[in-house]
Amino acid sequence: MCVCAQVLYDFTAEPGNNELTVREGETVTITNQGVGGGWIEAQNSRGEVGLVPEDYIEVREWLGVLSMELASFILYINVLFLLIYSEDDEWDDEWDDVKSNSESGDGGAIQRGGATGSSMKISLNKFPGFSKSGPELFLLCKQPPKGKEKITIYMGEVGPVWSYPEAQLDCVVADPKKGTKMYGLKSYIEYHVIPNTTNRPVNHRYKHFDWLYERLLDKFGSAIPIPSLPDKQVTGRFEEEFIKMRMERLQGWMTRMCRHPVVSNSDVFQLFLTYKDEKDWKTGKRKAEKDEDVGVMIFSSIEPEAPDLDPIEVEQKCDQFSRFTKAMDDGVKDLLTVGQEHWKRCTGPLPKEYQRIGKAFQNLSSVFTSSGYQGEATLTDAMTSAGKTYEEIAQMVAEQPRKDLHFLMENNNEYKGLLGCFPDTIGVHKAAIEKVKEGDRLVAASKITPQDKVTMAKRVSTMSYALQAEMNHFHSNRIYDYNRVMQLYLEEQVKFYETIAEKLKQAHSQFTTM
Amino acid sequence: MCVCAQVLYDFTAEPGNNELTVREGETVTITNQGVGGGWIEAQNSRGEVGLVPEDYIEVREWLGVLSMELASFILYINVLFLLIYSEDDEWDDEWDDVKSNSESGDGGAIQRGGATGSSMKISLNKFPGFSKSGPELFLLCKQPPKGKEKITIYMGEVGPVWSYPEAQLDCVVADPKKGTKMYGLKSYIEYHVIPNTTNRPVNHRYKHFDWLYERLLDKFGSAIPIPSLPDKQVTGRFEEEFIKMRMERLQGWMTRMCRHPVVSNSDVFQLFLTYKDEKDWKTGKRKAEKDEDVGVMIFSSIEPEAPDLDPIEVEQKCDQFSRFTKAMDDGVKDLLTVGQEHWKRCTGPLPKEYQRIGKAFQNLSSVFTSSGYQGEATLTDAMTSAGKTYEEIAQMVAEQPRKDLHFLMENNNEYKGLLGCFPDTIGVHKAAIEKVKEGDRLVAASKITPQDKVTMAKRVSTMSYALQAEMNHFHSNRIYDYNRVMQLYLEEQVKFYETIAEKLKQAHSQFTTM
Repeated sequence: MCVCAQVLYDFTAEPGNNELTVREGETVTITNQGVGGGWIEAQNSRGEVGLVPEDYIEVREWLGVLSMELASFILYINVLFLLIYSEDDEWDDEWDDVKSNSESGDGGAIQRGGATGSSMKISLNKFPGFSKSGPELFLLCKQPPKGKEKITIYMGEVGPVWSYPEAQLDCVVADPKKGTKMYGLKSYIEYHVIPNTTNRPVNHRYKHFDWLYERLLDKFGSAIPIPSLPDKQVTGRFEEEFIKMRMERLQGWMTRMCRHPVVSNSDVFQLFLTYKDEKDWKTGKRKAEKDEDVGVMIFSSIEPEAPDLDPIEVEQKCDQFSRFTKAMDDGVKDLLTVGQEHWKRCTGPLPKEYQRIGKAFQNLSSVFTSSGYQGEATLTDAMTSAGKTYEEIAQMVAEQPRKDLHFLMENNNEYKGLLGCFPDTIGVHKAAIEKVKEGDRLVAASKITPQDKVTMAKRVSTMSYALQAEMNHFHSNRIYDYNRVMQLYLEEQVKFYETIAEKLKQAHSQFTTM
Repeated sequence: MCVCAQVLYDFTAEPGNNELTVREGETVTITNQGVGGGWIEAQNSRGEVGLVPEDYIEVREWLGVLSMELASFILYINVLFLLIYSEDDEWDDEWDDVKSNSESGDGGAIQRGGATGSSMKISLNKFPGFSKSGPELFLLCKQPPKGKEKITIYMGEVGPVWSYPEAQLDCVVADPKKGTKMYGLKSYIEYHVIPNTTNRPVNHRYKHFDWLYERLLDKFGSAIPIPSLPDKQVTGRFEEEFIKMRMERLQGWMTRMCRHPVVSNSDVFQLFLTYKDEKDWKTGKRKAEKDEDVGVMIFSSIEPEAPDLDPIEVEQKCDQFSRFTKAMDDGVKDLLTVGQEHWKRCTGPLPKEYQRIGKAFQNLSSVFTSSGYQGEATLTDAMTSAGKTYEEIAQMVAEQPRKDLHFLMENNNEYKGLLGCFPDTIGVHKAAIEKVKEGDRLVAASKITPQDKVTMAKRVSTMSYALQAEMNHFHSNRIYDYNRVMQLYLEEQVKFYETIAEKLKQAHSQFTTM
């Protein structure tokens, strides 16, 4: 079935991201509506396929190209759905994203680099190139709103730390199930998410995770790097392999969010994990979308239990973190590059070579068998066995990366994503520091009062404590994660080499000692 | 110093053999006179360098290009040498080869494929493309010469076998020493050869081994495949690596010859191993060179203690051996190709990759060290150590082929050489079978007598027993060699993987358990 759509705005694809460049007025064919995360897969008239933001195209016009009979039928089905599920806005909330996002606060809305046309009303929080601007909103607001949630920062052994809960929240993402809507026109995967607090599963689709991501980014993004969800991926969406991988990555993302004391304690995160029923979910959802305590205003909830810092000290801390995250980003990317090459070798040429060694031994052995010479059997049996051992080793080599390198790579990929959020988080602080530096000039120009200047210094100190608490949280998690993943990697590597040695020992024992 | 020479005859290089094509009358520059084996290295006017048979060029004319003063001096030195070492023809026996070979029997002299000009008097036994022709020399000779050496063939468990000595001859090739002649103008390596019978070392240069090879090929080549000596090699002749490798290969060649009951028992081989002094060596050398019991006449010394075989059976045996040696040749070459590729990978890209993994770990570790976070040391120490372990593994991977693959390759290279001799040895038998098939026609045409026909059948039966004995010798050695080399290979591989596992286990233990 051909499903067509009209392009509403120009969109320029970002290289290497599976995106498709489209121009306003162009007609494209929808090849996959179920990609999730606010994207759909489309094909242009030149046959090129790629992702396009769903807000950029008029998906409803796809009826236009169908024969009138079929179009009427589909229209009938649509109406039927509206009647049956009139109380459930779930079915068409993929088109509601525009509305719900434009309703939410502007604190986090920025323009994305690649997109053109500034008058569009689209959710920009979807894009990873997020950067908060205007810390003065918090620095100069007359009266910080008295939110219900208070975020405390203590002085721990390592410096400023968030307040950690006694029992760590955790959850399991499991039981992916395929579901369809609109008589199979739309299909999706639903996961069970089971928190360790209630032990009761709640259902969530990828788009719900994406909704949660957007809420967390809106609310905490200025103070806490919120890593992106696992990439949207087109091919093989319903193949087992892909589902398993996406689930594993959603699990990783959720685990990281659960581990964060500020994020895990938030209303929106708790709602996601423990909503009681559909009504509860919908009410909570609307409330979260109307939350005004977003963007830089998060700092107004933060209360450091420590003396104010000097702006110079704040700047030094900021620069130190900036250098560290940059250096770690380079290191992580280097390891990923090396790991990818190693993966390729281990699954490509290397096992082929071991297989050829194995075949060569077996081949020679079968030539020997044809000699007609007596007392040949011991050697030929042993050589055949040695040959088979090398074929087994070939398979082990090819399968090994999934057992060890995979986790090392996944961990580093997660950190690559996380580190990619730091420049923006740190950027908010740098902008605040610049603003404070302008203090005297602003007072002289009567733009702010001397009292405002004092307030700004105090508030930038709060921001610095938040950054330090976040860095310490990051470091502690990093040490835990790298310890764990390196141990797992080396453990599996040891097993791998020991198994090979054992197999070769057995092969060796079959040769006669002479 | 520029040493020039005049080309006496056309010589066409064989591809892939480091040879240089030269034309009669051409002037070449001698770049290495000490290559040995009857070859010298020369450079033509186009700057191309390669090997040329020393008989093909007038090396004595190199005086022509020197300044007259220097030429006179060299001439003086030459004369001096002639006076001092007048009783030792060793110093110039590189030019004596032509004479000594042209004096030896014609039984083994054939024309080499690549060389042009049939009127040249050169030693053709030097060339590996040896093939005996004319088995009728033996089949129809009126009265087989009553040689002193008798070669017996018994019926063993596996079929016809040579008569094996009670104690197996063995020898050690050791202590390579560099020597020079003609005031350093010529230099060579001299080896100690120590047989287990006398335990007394005799000295031999490569050219002596080559002389022995030619004698053995002349004498036994029709019945026993005599493998070529290790390749002549030009570069790095006096570098330790090359000397070690050549010695190892000469050792392998000598061991194989020692193991052969017929070869090891021959006068010429015993002379080589146990000559008492220079005089003894020279006398024995001249005697060996005058031996007329060469070529197909070797079969006249062979006495099988078994009933005559039917010519049809002889042909079947012959075909079976031909098929087997061809199949094994293919198998061995296949293993060599695979092994060479594996060698390249193990010494090239693979260790580089492990090194990069090691560097990436260490790099990330040093970034972590810069975090300023407390309690970082355990992780960073462990990661640095893991990184170093992978660098060690890189080195192990690169060095491993010399410890295991090397011997597997050397063994298969030896067998490749040996198998390359079989087509010629088998060819002699096939020619004899054809001759016997012509028997009736030849009798009818009165070319041979009916008695000759009976004699021919009896003699081709003798040849078949010799081939069977040789094949059984080959099989028994092959089983021994492949058992030994596979055991060694697998043993070293087990050690290699166990060491890696052990190193990784140690690296693993440095991470803290959490």
